Amino acid sequence: MEPIRKIEEGLKELYDNNAGKVERQPDVDIYDVGDNIVIYIDMPGMRKENIKVRVYDRAVEVTAAPVQPEGGGKPLRRERISNFPVSRKVEVPYRLRVDSARAIYRDGVLQIVVAKAGEYGVAELKID
Amino acid sequence: MEPIRKIEEGLKELYDNNAGKVERQPDVDIYDVGDNIVIYIDMPGMRKENIKVRVYDRAVEVTAAPVQPEGGGKPLRRERISNFPVSRKVEVPYRLRVDSARAIYRDGVLQIVVAKAGEYGVAELKID
Repeated sequence: MEPIRKIEEGLKELYDNNAGKVERQPDVDIYDVGDNIVIYIDMPGMRKENIKVRVYDRAVEVTAAPVQPEGGGKPLRRERISNFPVSRKVEVPYRLRVDSARAIYRDGVLQIVVAKAGEYGVAELKID
Repeated sequence: MEPIRKIEEGLKELYDNNAGKVERQPDVDIYDVGDNIVIYIDMPGMRKENIKVRVYDRAVEVTAAPVQPEGGGKPLRRERISNFPVSRKVEVPYRLRVDSARAIYRDGVLQIVVAKAGEYGVAELKID
């Protein structure tokens, strides 16, 4: 899968040249575990206080402010997501019980658990 | 910077369709802090035991095995780097004191500190 590697390398160059300027989208996993939807969002090196999570009827949105580098020094390369404003809204194929949602930040991963409120009804119409 | 967003979205679709199969490159920051080079590598949600770090004369290489998802359930989307074999070798513009290197894993970020062994000599030749 050489093409993926080439695109990744190109992106990393773009990131390095635009640190702090562009908005980046974190990587997301979504699992259906019966009554709940579990969402994992990669946000390594962030501060918990800088992360905002919103749960909608059918989507989850996360935003975060960039983190100042700790150690200082002269940056030779800057690609990591914590250098950038972060924003992403992911839709899930279920209605969510918004008030049930809870979030944990561990090992650089934000984990969100939300209960399903049911599937969306679909009405199939006969054409008279 | 709309193009970056489009490339990111395309890549995330590719990741979701190739979870576990392709090899991914983690994001890296490199800082020059006087006597030392400090390298930060985003590896959220990994197990410390699964990460291997090698320090070369002028480069650092990191590899990691994919992590099995904890909670189980049915994956609706899988983009996160911990689903993939991870591999990246980054060069630095200094010779490194290989035996001085040490690494810490915290908040999903691998931090490597290595002392500089000096700059590369450059001989500029006069053409007789």
